[in-house]
Amino acid sequence: MDSSLPRALHDAMSTRLGDGWLTGEGRRLYGGDDSRRWAMPSAVALPRTPDDVVALVRACREHRVPLVARGAGTGTTGAAVPTQGGVVVSFARMDRILELRAADRCVVVEPGVLNGGLQQTLAPYNLFWPPDPSSADLCSVGGNLATNAGGPRAVKYGTARDNVLGLVAVTGAGDLIRCGGAYTKDATGYDLTHLIVGSEGTLALIVEATLKLAPRPHAQAGLRVLYRDAATAAAAVSRIMARPTTPTMLEFMDRSAIALIRRNGSDVPEAGAMLLVEADGDDDTLPYALQALADAAEGEGLIALDVATDGSARDRLWAARRALSPALRTIRPGKINEDVVVPVSRIPDLVAAMEALSLEAGLPVVVFGHAGNGNLHVNIMYDDADAAETARAQAALPRVFAQVLALGGTLSGEHGIGLSKRNFMADAFSAATLDAMHAVKAALDPDGILNPGKVLPPREPL
Amino acid sequence: MDSSLPRALHDAMSTRLGDGWLTGEGRRLYGGDDSRRWAMPSAVALPRTPDDVVALVRACREHRVPLVARGAGTGTTGAAVPTQGGVVVSFARMDRILELRAADRCVVVEPGVLNGGLQQTLAPYNLFWPPDPSSADLCSVGGNLATNAGGPRAVKYGTARDNVLGLVAVTGAGDLIRCGGAYTKDATGYDLTHLIVGSEGTLALIVEATLKLAPRPHAQAGLRVLYRDAATAAAAVSRIMARPTTPTMLEFMDRSAIALIRRNGSDVPEAGAMLLVEADGDDDTLPYALQALADAAEGEGLIALDVATDGSARDRLWAARRALSPALRTIRPGKINEDVVVPVSRIPDLVAAMEALSLEAGLPVVVFGHAGNGNLHVNIMYDDADAAETARAQAALPRVFAQVLALGGTLSGEHGIGLSKRNFMADAFSAATLDAMHAVKAALDPDGILNPGKVLPPREPL
Repeated sequence: MDSSLPRALHDAMSTRLGDGWLTGEGRRLYGGDDSRRWAMPSAVALPRTPDDVVALVRACREHRVPLVARGAGTGTTGAAVPTQGGVVVSFARMDRILELRAADRCVVVEPGVLNGGLQQTLAPYNLFWPPDPSSADLCSVGGNLATNAGGPRAVKYGTARDNVLGLVAVTGAGDLIRCGGAYTKDATGYDLTHLIVGSEGTLALIVEATLKLAPRPHAQAGLRVLYRDAATAAAAVSRIMARPTTPTMLEFMDRSAIALIRRNGSDVPEAGAMLLVEADGDDDTLPYALQALADAAEGEGLIALDVATDGSARDRLWAARRALSPALRTIRPGKINEDVVVPVSRIPDLVAAMEALSLEAGLPVVVFGHAGNGNLHVNIMYDDADAAETARAQAALPRVFAQVLALGGTLSGEHGIGLSKRNFMADAFSAATLDAMHAVKAALDPDGILNPGKVLPPREPL
Repeated sequence: MDSSLPRALHDAMSTRLGDGWLTGEGRRLYGGDDSRRWAMPSAVALPRTPDDVVALVRACREHRVPLVARGAGTGTTGAAVPTQGGVVVSFARMDRILELRAADRCVVVEPGVLNGGLQQTLAPYNLFWPPDPSSADLCSVGGNLATNAGGPRAVKYGTARDNVLGLVAVTGAGDLIRCGGAYTKDATGYDLTHLIVGSEGTLALIVEATLKLAPRPHAQAGLRVLYRDAATAAAAVSRIMARPTTPTMLEFMDRSAIALIRRNGSDVPEAGAMLLVEADGDDDTLPYALQALADAAEGEGLIALDVATDGSARDRLWAARRALSPALRTIRPGKINEDVVVPVSRIPDLVAAMEALSLEAGLPVVVFGHAGNGNLHVNIMYDDADAAETARAQAALPRVFAQVLALGGTLSGEHGIGLSKRNFMADAFSAATLDAMHAVKAALDPDGILNPGKVLPPREPL
């Protein structure tokens, strides 16, 4: 057992949680996430009830021990890594669907429910929960809420924050709070629900969520549209988003992303930029929706527009998009992938800036992502066995963020801040705004035990 | 001049604001709202810039003088009434549209812009801002944000909180903070934007907002559907909301509301309940949307379904709905109107409970409103010259809220809490949840100068 773990805390939690309190080697599995960071927790708690969580928070608070919430460990920013030691709390044993209220279009779940499993449960009711991160089969709803996860469908259906109606959570003070509920309109007191969403376990631990569901569309169809360059593709994104028919997905690939999937055997023709556009609806209306999107996609710089209406054509369309992330590793083994956001109208500026950065840094930079939200994944590729390339990649990163902020954008659209982007927060927000965030943190977590060192940059001593 | 106004505060603000600092009889016009409450402010400030607002907050904080934000005074809860004296800050002179970014589907405005004027400015761009309270022509965007205003369109497009991307605000500490921006996806730090929305001027004063816009649909059409009773109408609401075609509006009227508009000359047949359903879209798809909604409206208890596709038929449809609020006064001069929310599936229970309450209290109770969100207006009608009726009406109010909370609903869907519902907050939230709200209040307004006594019930002495 880790000697830094207070004995009284250990005894109390061991008694309460039984085999849900790990202090042996099993802890090792709870120390990392998909950022490739790892740190050994002093203990791992696997609570089964909200009361367990209240007891855990109170004990950690009493002993001033850090408490780091963990979903399924698929995060990319180090938010779930216990870099200051302490206890990791995994919600893997709080994974029940508590109440499916189809008539109210919502479901009440525990945080450990997996996104993919939830969707399977909802399918027979012709309902779904919109957030669709690429890790959907593996990631937990609690993690989705903690990071305000998104995915391609967010352009029509919104992110995790837009799809939660209420929460039960335990604050850093050890208090169980309940806000919102099974209703879609609320002007009653402060909106703690949406404040806690996206706070990455630094304000409160979510122990129950009422999720807003959407009716499953009967049919989908897609368009693949090639453009001369990023500027004309981005203009098309603005045109598409200005129409009443909102696409279900609106994905962008830059020239280097297209070149990459072509090298890996895709049948996409050479082009300066590509949009993948999807519409949903029912059989009667889908053709009109698709036509409206195709009309909007037409314009200066268009090279080719292909429609994929049936299942297999549509699968081929999206296979190219899905192949992209794995294919990146064929360029270079190392990757810095940031999910920046810019106003839609500034996408061409961002792409141009990334092309310039690629030339200057002498490294491939591949840009693709959720264009309808201006949420682009900028991938700086480098050989992580090559010290010089690694250094150049790391030096390029602050320039990506500086460019994004200069364009009126922000650091993260769906991955969150965690540790990876924490030190750029002072560039994204004024000192007064960060002070306000620190004040809110202190209000809900007075002793700073919840996920210390994440999201907000450490404060200068006064 | 009010002798309670500190001289130094007066001198500083008078110098800074000139004729935008009122201490004479002109103040009187800034003391009331549509709750029929009124109190005389010690002074009224009409700032022109964010810097003016920072200076005002800092001066009020220094002298511990209450500062009450005011939009256009159309609120119904007393939130803008300076019941503890102090300074009212009106944003009437900060009413500019700062930047219309059509390609980014957003607009940057000052808080004093009127909702109706904004919509006129946006119309040529085929864009609109979704919140549509019945006072839209008169109310300000700042007030809409402060109360999280809604309206019938919220069922498809959401409320004010769902339609704001970023804010610049001055906290009660006197700090200018900036969060969010001209983008629709954000996982960067704490979501102060949506926390400040709906906080009724108790956390921060909004000095600039980036509003999310929606494309204007090309066409609308409506359905008028009559049912045997509230239960069958409510079942239809659940069926309609379970389909992928979301209506633009989905309004409910109970038996007494129908009887009222019939007495006032409407051609609506007698029925136990009525739904008004509207769809929007373009000319190609609208017929399909309307058919999908009509199919969902069909079912047990349906008496009649009428379609209103063209402009004048549609106008007649909505005229009945619009006539309802004024017609209420023909029953009784006095009205307690609460905008409660219940889960959609519990609408029949609420309507039944209100029928029972009407019988017990010996007073007409009329229920209508935004059924798609479960947001119903419960109107307890009484003769305000009759002391006994007034007492019975006031005694009935807590029973409305108790019923709503027992059904898993909440106090307000779009009007907010203000003073009217403040003392019911302890019924709606646990002590720990209210403590968390008080802690957030103290974090952003450490001296409690912003709109004291509103939203949160006063704390018991420790």
